[in-house]
Amino acid sequence: MVNSITKNKEIWRERKLNPALAHAPERQEKFVTTSEIEIERLYLPTEETADGYLDRLGFPGEYPFTRGVQPTMYRGRFWTMRQYAGFGSAEETNQRFKYLLDQGQTGLSVAFDLPTQIGYDADDPLAEGEVGKVGVSISSLEDMETLLDGIPLDKVSTSMTINAPASVLLAMYIAVGNKQGVPPEKLRGTVQNDILKEYIARGTYIFPPKPSMRLITDIMGHCRVCLPHWNVISISGYHIREAGSSAAQEIAFTLANGIAYVQAALDAGLDVDEFGGQLSFFFNAHNNLFEEVAKFRAARRLWAKIMRERFGAKREKSCMLRFHTQTGGSTLTAQQPMNNVVRVAMQALAAVLGGTQSLHTNSMDEALALPTEEAVQVALRTQQIIAYESGVADTVDPLAGSYFVEDLTDQLEAKAAAYLARIDEVGGALAAIEQGYIQREIQESAYRYQRAIERKQNVIVGVNKFTVKEETQPELLRVDESVAQKQRERLTALRQRRDQAAVQQTLDNLKKTAGSSENLMPFILAAVEAYATTGEICHALRKVWGEYRPPVLL
Amino acid sequence: MVNSITKNKEIWRERKLNPALAHAPERQEKFVTTSEIEIERLYLPTEETADGYLDRLGFPGEYPFTRGVQPTMYRGRFWTMRQYAGFGSAEETNQRFKYLLDQGQTGLSVAFDLPTQIGYDADDPLAEGEVGKVGVSISSLEDMETLLDGIPLDKVSTSMTINAPASVLLAMYIAVGNKQGVPPEKLRGTVQNDILKEYIARGTYIFPPKPSMRLITDIMGHCRVCLPHWNVISISGYHIREAGSSAAQEIAFTLANGIAYVQAALDAGLDVDEFGGQLSFFFNAHNNLFEEVAKFRAARRLWAKIMRERFGAKREKSCMLRFHTQTGGSTLTAQQPMNNVVRVAMQALAAVLGGTQSLHTNSMDEALALPTEEAVQVALRTQQIIAYESGVADTVDPLAGSYFVEDLTDQLEAKAAAYLARIDEVGGALAAIEQGYIQREIQESAYRYQRAIERKQNVIVGVNKFTVKEETQPELLRVDESVAQKQRERLTALRQRRDQAAVQQTLDNLKKTAGSSENLMPFILAAVEAYATTGEICHALRKVWGEYRPPVLL
Repeated sequence: MVNSITKNKEIWRERKLNPALAHAPERQEKFVTTSEIEIERLYLPTEETADGYLDRLGFPGEYPFTRGVQPTMYRGRFWTMRQYAGFGSAEETNQRFKYLLDQGQTGLSVAFDLPTQIGYDADDPLAEGEVGKVGVSISSLEDMETLLDGIPLDKVSTSMTINAPASVLLAMYIAVGNKQGVPPEKLRGTVQNDILKEYIARGTYIFPPKPSMRLITDIMGHCRVCLPHWNVISISGYHIREAGSSAAQEIAFTLANGIAYVQAALDAGLDVDEFGGQLSFFFNAHNNLFEEVAKFRAARRLWAKIMRERFGAKREKSCMLRFHTQTGGSTLTAQQPMNNVVRVAMQALAAVLGGTQSLHTNSMDEALALPTEEAVQVALRTQQIIAYESGVADTVDPLAGSYFVEDLTDQLEAKAAAYLARIDEVGGALAAIEQGYIQREIQESAYRYQRAIERKQNVIVGVNKFTVKEETQPELLRVDESVAQKQRERLTALRQRRDQAAVQQTLDNLKKTAGSSENLMPFILAAVEAYATTGEICHALRKVWGEYRPPVLL
Repeated sequence: MVNSITKNKEIWRERKLNPALAHAPERQEKFVTTSEIEIERLYLPTEETADGYLDRLGFPGEYPFTRGVQPTMYRGRFWTMRQYAGFGSAEETNQRFKYLLDQGQTGLSVAFDLPTQIGYDADDPLAEGEVGKVGVSISSLEDMETLLDGIPLDKVSTSMTINAPASVLLAMYIAVGNKQGVPPEKLRGTVQNDILKEYIARGTYIFPPKPSMRLITDIMGHCRVCLPHWNVISISGYHIREAGSSAAQEIAFTLANGIAYVQAALDAGLDVDEFGGQLSFFFNAHNNLFEEVAKFRAARRLWAKIMRERFGAKREKSCMLRFHTQTGGSTLTAQQPMNNVVRVAMQALAAVLGGTQSLHTNSMDEALALPTEEAVQVALRTQQIIAYESGVADTVDPLAGSYFVEDLTDQLEAKAAAYLARIDEVGGALAAIEQGYIQREIQESAYRYQRAIERKQNVIVGVNKFTVKEETQPELLRVDESVAQKQRERLTALRQRRDQAAVQQTLDNLKKTAGSSENLMPFILAAVEAYATTGEICHALRKVWGEYRPPVLL
């Protein structure tokens, strides 16, 4: 095919690039190096070296999206710099959010405390000792109002790391929007809402799989109509990787869960092209720089094929794997914490070279405690230096064509596809989880990785090599116990103030609907707006559905 | 040519790889990713995509060395981690060297103070206020003995940043070797010995160009016979870049100087293949990640062609551009110094992806003062994390084939070649310097760069964007004024103790030889061993040759 690259480039220019540029110009008219070499938007093979290029890579913003989901990528605008944050009370976290926005962050990401994540209020005896510890405590709409005070919801996009009670927290967010005068259709953000990886790796589940999947498809069904700019799920490989999986497993098990969600939505009667564009993903950025870049590229290509070939998606947007990235928390060391700045920089670079849509960079002290403001600032600056100083954002998919990176991309895709075939054989992700197959595969990987560290085949600088005697302890941020006390008092006051009969009515309605197949979202929203608490709503559903008990792994 | 890649790979395996592996095995038997993908030594295009590959890139360890100077690169062993260090007295610097070796550094790099670099003793009135400030004060062999006390010279390689008086400090190093029982032929290291870039950018010159070039060719002639493992020169682009040149200019002006040295050595009657393998280079690693990687690759290819095509070198070693890299000091900011850790990590990565032979990573506080031990540790850890944790050293030239990086490599080579043609037109590097051409070109680049920063077209994080009010001042290391006093006292005692008549005799002999064409190195060595001082030797030569005065730039 003479001129096939040139011809296809022309088609791409007409179909993708020109509309994208008409919609939003690039950051600069011209991108140049220090040597005044003009950096092109897109580098391509020559006709002579293009063998297989169009099938395997194609053009950015086009199927199979190997080179990225937008035609201009970061030449248009940088990824969203989104630092996961939350601790103590809603007031404190609100202050931290304002600090981050002031430092140049471009999106919010809420960390909730453990009681909130598993559906217990701050004053529940089971919440004892955990209130505000690893995230912010949000027991009611009142807390959510405080959390978002002074932050205009039509201006920011917000990611919420919440799963089992995702509907509850999303409803609170919608309610705050309504109070601010921002209608749901203008809200932008993401709920994590990925219960399968909770069963696999993370552990903050409440309900058994079946009603859990129904909560998810109810969110999908609701947002499809009412919140068109909301990502209804963030299908998460991050925690799978943190649990010790390999890069290939991270792709495979994440996409396997993705397949299960798509199937559940189809089974609930939704159309793949109506919700496919509202799915998003969340990956880890680990140490091995080029394997990580290849991982992101392979995941994009594989998901595109799954959506088109397996689920028959017709809209290009349904085939786009868009993802958030967080640098690998488990790679950080308590020893010589400044070394973590270097690790995070390399991992962040991998995410950017891999084409991430948003990024959280860990703070250097995250292996020790909650991050201090100074550490958070350095973490954000790391993203800004990569964006503004390194030049890597000036062309699309800069590593395309590298013999090494393309080979890794192909191999990772093949390895992940082999896992997916195996999971299909055992009956899909849910069955594979119930049988403990996925958990065991991850455990074996984690074991090999640990052994390699113990034998010093894997070197961790400052841990099993280049150690020093350490005397100085950096300043650590710890959550005051008084936070829990204040939160309990607030909650007591709220319970006295609110219209108890109205609360009870909404909870009764909710229970009734939970036993039917009607979409639960409007009922959860009604309960939230009556100031029913996170715990009360979850307890109501527990009464109908029961709780999940994990399988015993042998 | 069917099977040309495969066939050529076989030839390379026989000729290069197998001998290299027989000489030293790789670091690991097998290199794998987290997904247990085996990382190959070398990734190549397929026959279908190999158009032009053999001419432009070829195989590592083979002409034109685009992919690196060794067949296994860092799979064999990592680059030398060599932190430039020196401050205050010889004792203090000796302690810092031992600290660095203890932290895992693998080579030494000596920073000398300004008086030493321009040939003045610590007790010279002109040295006032500068003794021990930016490096260690070495006024005599006695100081050099203290500097290297307890460091076995047959075990380390040592780089000395010394130019105008390079012969003097090299002679002192040889003399310490002799005292340790290490013969000169076992010494490994480098003297910077690059006077042309002193005229262009750095400013620590003493003599006019002609005798300066003669000192350099005398070192070349001497080392060719007596110190076969010594790099006789480190042709330095680092300071040219720090002065504000672009990446293309850094290549061009450095190689132009290289051409001048080779020509001077040929004019002095040396054979290109006798000294060509003892030339080494020194580059900057600046911010633009991919341009920097391309710069190193382009410089290797261009130098190989120059040595073979212009100078008729026959030995492959003569065509190899081997280089040390330092991360770009001028890119560091006094504001938010922790940000410098991120910058240095990215720059160090560029050097490694570009195939450097040794590397200095700047300390985060270098924009403020001399680096503290803690800052030096983080800088070294940065290299170790890249080496041991990031996986980028597990395959040769990982970015080869990238459409973007190969295009940049080609363009940088072409731009640099165009500058070289221009410099040839005006009569070579020396003439271009005397006419101020090179200096003016750099000034113009520096001006454009500064303007871009002032207009915020170039963002410097923490300086012209993302600024904060800074209150905390990090702990700074400053050199005590008492250092100069002690050094003066030591020198007075030495002058009283030594055999003054013997000193005078060696200086007289030196002056006599300076007027002849005989190699000066044996005479300098004799003076050094009689404990004649740095200043005395340089003054003797000043009397014969006079001093350099720079041209007035218009």
